[in-house]
Amino acid sequence: MKDIDIMADRKTDQPHEAAQAGIAEWQRIVAELDWESLPDLLAEKVTYRSPADIEAYHGKDTMVAILRLVFGIMEDFTYLRHFSGGNGYVLEFSTHVGDARLFGVDIVEFDQNGKITDFMVMMRPADAVLTLASEAAKRMAAG
Amino acid sequence: MKDIDIMADRKTDQPHEAAQAGIAEWQRIVAELDWESLPDLLAEKVTYRSPADIEAYHGKDTMVAILRLVFGIMEDFTYLRHFSGGNGYVLEFSTHVGDARLFGVDIVEFDQNGKITDFMVMMRPADAVLTLASEAAKRMAAG
Repeated sequence: MKDIDIMADRKTDQPHEAAQAGIAEWQRIVAELDWESLPDLLAEKVTYRSPADIEAYHGKDTMVAILRLVFGIMEDFTYLRHFSGGNGYVLEFSTHVGDARLFGVDIVEFDQNGKITDFMVMMRPADAVLTLASEAAKRMAAG
Repeated sequence: MKDIDIMADRKTDQPHEAAQAGIAEWQRIVAELDWESLPDLLAEKVTYRSPADIEAYHGKDTMVAILRLVFGIMEDFTYLRHFSGGNGYVLEFSTHVGDARLFGVDIVEFDQNGKITDFMVMMRPADAVLTLASEAAKRMAAG
């Protein structure tokens, strides 16, 4: 039984090759905060789903603007566990906003060309998510 | 390239056999709201991480009480996408609390015996999470 578990633990999910390349490019962009490269990784009609709003956001420019803004507020952003399935990945992360510690997940779906078609973010705890959202709205309003 | 993608899409992650059996039992318990069976699926020192609090909860009795309470408030709970990796699974869901629609994920980790050791829930949007948490606290206080 022990041997079976060890072997099973070695198995890893591998979404299609274009998705594998896409998630690697996403992680590079986040590590380098290379937002100039992000549009090339996004499908034209990409959908972004924020942890604060039920309504989704659409389009490359909107998603790039939101991520630039939010990554300018979050500190010590670090990816933790990694899950995958179908054409997508779930990347767990930890971060800070001021004194508040947060954990979250990015749920990222890719098309057959390795472009991101859907990007959903969920974070906990909820009160810190609202703090982050209000700071983002303040900075957005300030241009 | 199309053939490669089709084959790659067929690959699925398979955490160890005990974890596979454990997640199937979890999904049965949720489908049947069979909370009496939940303690047998939990490790003694199981950790529950809620979408509303940064502090974790510990122990079987606490987790069972919280889930009984929360599943008594959520309506139309439905699992959506499914991801896996290592010894765990991410199960995306949709639900309603009153008029508020929510999406969330259960991130479930299993030990080598197929018992749940860590259960983290994240949900969006954040304001609806706070509505759910305050309703849960009200019912908890009311016994």
